[in-house]
Amino acid sequence: MAAVAAATRWQLLLVLSAAGLGVTLAPQPPNILLLLMDDMGWGDLGVYGEPSRETPNLDQMAAEGMLFPNFYAANPLCSPSRAALLTGRLPIRTGFYTSNGHARNAYTPQEVVGGIPDSEHLLPELLRTAGYASKIVGKWHLGHRPQFHPLKHGFDEWFGSPNCHFGPYDNKARPNIPVYRDWEMVGRYYEEFPINLRTGEANLTQIYVQEALDFIKGQQAARRPFFLYWAVDATHAPVYASRPFLGSSQRGRYGDAVREIDAGIGRVLRLLQDLGVAENTFVFFTSDNGAALISAPKQGGSNGPFLCGKQTTFEGGMREPAIAWWPGRIPAGQVSHQLGSIMDLFTTSLSVAGLEPPSDRAIDGLDLLPAMLQGRLMDRPIFYYRGNTLMAVTLGQYKAHFWTWTNSWEEFRQGVDFCPGQNISGVTTHTQEEHTKLPLIFHLGRDPGERYPLSVASTEYLDALHRITSVVQQHQETLVPGQPQLNVCNQAVMNWAPPGCEKLGKCLEPPESVPEKCSWPH
Amino acid sequence: MAAVAAATRWQLLLVLSAAGLGVTLAPQPPNILLLLMDDMGWGDLGVYGEPSRETPNLDQMAAEGMLFPNFYAANPLCSPSRAALLTGRLPIRTGFYTSNGHARNAYTPQEVVGGIPDSEHLLPELLRTAGYASKIVGKWHLGHRPQFHPLKHGFDEWFGSPNCHFGPYDNKARPNIPVYRDWEMVGRYYEEFPINLRTGEANLTQIYVQEALDFIKGQQAARRPFFLYWAVDATHAPVYASRPFLGSSQRGRYGDAVREIDAGIGRVLRLLQDLGVAENTFVFFTSDNGAALISAPKQGGSNGPFLCGKQTTFEGGMREPAIAWWPGRIPAGQVSHQLGSIMDLFTTSLSVAGLEPPSDRAIDGLDLLPAMLQGRLMDRPIFYYRGNTLMAVTLGQYKAHFWTWTNSWEEFRQGVDFCPGQNISGVTTHTQEEHTKLPLIFHLGRDPGERYPLSVASTEYLDALHRITSVVQQHQETLVPGQPQLNVCNQAVMNWAPPGCEKLGKCLEPPESVPEKCSWPH
Repeated sequence: MAAVAAATRWQLLLVLSAAGLGVTLAPQPPNILLLLMDDMGWGDLGVYGEPSRETPNLDQMAAEGMLFPNFYAANPLCSPSRAALLTGRLPIRTGFYTSNGHARNAYTPQEVVGGIPDSEHLLPELLRTAGYASKIVGKWHLGHRPQFHPLKHGFDEWFGSPNCHFGPYDNKARPNIPVYRDWEMVGRYYEEFPINLRTGEANLTQIYVQEALDFIKGQQAARRPFFLYWAVDATHAPVYASRPFLGSSQRGRYGDAVREIDAGIGRVLRLLQDLGVAENTFVFFTSDNGAALISAPKQGGSNGPFLCGKQTTFEGGMREPAIAWWPGRIPAGQVSHQLGSIMDLFTTSLSVAGLEPPSDRAIDGLDLLPAMLQGRLMDRPIFYYRGNTLMAVTLGQYKAHFWTWTNSWEEFRQGVDFCPGQNISGVTTHTQEEHTKLPLIFHLGRDPGERYPLSVASTEYLDALHRITSVVQQHQETLVPGQPQLNVCNQAVMNWAPPGCEKLGKCLEPPESVPEKCSWPH
Repeated sequence: MAAVAAATRWQLLLVLSAAGLGVTLAPQPPNILLLLMDDMGWGDLGVYGEPSRETPNLDQMAAEGMLFPNFYAANPLCSPSRAALLTGRLPIRTGFYTSNGHARNAYTPQEVVGGIPDSEHLLPELLRTAGYASKIVGKWHLGHRPQFHPLKHGFDEWFGSPNCHFGPYDNKARPNIPVYRDWEMVGRYYEEFPINLRTGEANLTQIYVQEALDFIKGQQAARRPFFLYWAVDATHAPVYASRPFLGSSQRGRYGDAVREIDAGIGRVLRLLQDLGVAENTFVFFTSDNGAALISAPKQGGSNGPFLCGKQTTFEGGMREPAIAWWPGRIPAGQVSHQLGSIMDLFTTSLSVAGLEPPSDRAIDGLDLLPAMLQGRLMDRPIFYYRGNTLMAVTLGQYKAHFWTWTNSWEEFRQGVDFCPGQNISGVTTHTQEEHTKLPLIFHLGRDPGERYPLSVASTEYLDALHRITSVVQQHQETLVPGQPQLNVCNQAVMNWAPPGCEKLGKCLEPPESVPEKCSWPH
């Protein structure tokens, strides 16, 4: 039923669009291509002011599309933000958080037991009802145990890995991370898929680009609408690039990785144009969280003028580069000041496909098509969570911090610094500071770097507080947190013997099962 | 003789250009329009990543022209940088520095006795030999006593003021700053030329835009090549804007001022196009020093990802937005990584006019036309002085700091902070730290924020040091410092009775002449 309704709505849209724009559209719903970067920062693109300006293809994409300077991740860490993209829901709802400590970031290392619950509706599952073929290329990160496999959650194809490309491991205390093709592993990082930590050389981005090109060509030949989720990870430490790109950047190895991805995206967009399907393909580029300043300068990116980076709920931790591209539909060279969220990609993609989001649960993602196609601005809050704690909220130009914390003094003294070179008294705190009664409020237009809290005695503060308080109250009163998925760890659940390991002779012996509370230090 | 030779060279260039590009050029040397901002920062333009993206005209200028992300002021303070622009020479050569203290910034408040020496050749003086009419609109800042008047140094017309628009003063202890039309004052700030400090309202930018439009039209009607030096000051604290722009920015009053200037520049460029002279007009946009973070967030701009601001020799103090625009000559939409300097505008403007720079003195400015027209990159150092002290040098991607200092602990404890929210141990120091033996060296490509000094034990450090040392030695061995102009102050030399005051009945009584050493605290 849903599929039929969707098709009908889509056909109507086709007629309306063709009438209104004089555009000839292909007789199928638009393809959807989401380009998700890993730890890439707001300030890493030329079009966002990166001084070396080494992203000509992304800059061109922005010139032909719409730039969103006020676009946000759903979390300052990878797994929760990725779960939010694919579900349209805050991590606090889907269970992608920990309650082991207060305000702790958590993700899915290979010893984590949890992952994406079956009860969640993922974007590819819903798009399937409208006839889409879906592929994920790259990093999944929503759980690596069998029940969390992406092909069990709506994707038809997968080439990539379930976890970060950390390593190399000894395959005794800890197995190397597997790389999958569809249901089965085809090798492991540092083994069949080498990453040279000394030189930074790895061919993975080239493989991921080829996977994207092949999938697009295949679906186009089959005349099937596609959803491609291209989740490359070369900009996550340890950063890597293939030989032709190594040393090509003025920015060091991190820049080499950015240049290779930029070139790959250029090839993908050109293929869409060469195939004549660019005008029937909605493309969106963004990143999962802010640049990991802890890995800078050699392995981390830039958050431009914003405060701190990954792991924090300051702007540098969650404000992302974002570009929408849909030639002939989204007007070229525009900037939208819409507050956007990675969760909007769920709802917007459904809308592109002519589908409605699920009505049986809270969906946080907005349909951004009115912003993209008609230049509308929609009032909406951005929530900044760390674990199960609402740290901050942005509404319009105002951001209120209810809690401030970077990390503990203990970690900081050991050199773990999420805000290198930045220090704002009472703001970038190393103890968890509660401001729920009297939040720190910043005007992000005048003060994007969150340096100057408004005076609590000012009318401006009181007005902003009043508006934000009512939004937060409504949010918290109706919020039903999901069962936390990132509390329990167990060495036995690691990638010892992924499906397909027998054929390759790469099965490893798991240790005894010992469930324990995961340790999340920050 | 010089004018004849210049005309000959220019005519030859015309023929060559017309043959090579198929462009029909007007039968006169190109006009020159230098747009110099006051305290505007690298990060204040959309095209440089300002998140609110409120500079559509400047962004369009960049799209039609060439962007320079690595362009520098000649000093972290206004007067010396402006003297350098108009002479093509470092302030240490022209005397635009103080030797009253070590590494002290100095400028031309109205009690300063010195100014631009007669021995200096200013750009308009030289352009006059090629038949140019020259006008300065806005802030002069090279000395306000009669011998320093811009019409004594090559300009044919002036509308603007000799000093900053500080005030209001009581005209007893201190006179309000006069506004001149050509030789004579036509009023004073806060009197005939009101600036409302409470609301930020002032019509000055509108007047300055009109002056530019009228001058361009007039010279075009007279078929005379022109040099217009448009030195507006609305982004210098106290920032101001006219009523239609007040409240129009997401960035507060500072943003209102930027928007008004951006709109004005749009009008000026459109006029050039409407008059059909755009292809015969070389336009360059830049700023005199980094954003004054001390005035942020309400009265100061943004230096993007760079460290600190005005008054410092970190990147935020001296790296500037810079756009070249010359339709049909400079290719559109290009980025040049040439290390550029405000002093290059002197030499480049001469080159545009078919003139050679003076050969009887050291000229620091390069001719950037090869970078602009042929995309060439020229190796050259950028010197960062504070007073008479060489604080730092950039060569290629490497910047070496020989001295680090922001300001004194005493000032800092009183709230004078040139690096708000930024603090890098051993780098943003509050005592003058000498590193002449073993400079701090940063790789600006990987680390534009100057956060991670290279290890002194690394090959990279030693290679960079070796190359920089030889450049610095050569510079210092051949340097002949000019007589310092900014050492002596005297209340009697203030703007008590500027020329024309009698006609207006606005002459004031000067106090007794008491020369004293100027006090330069930072």
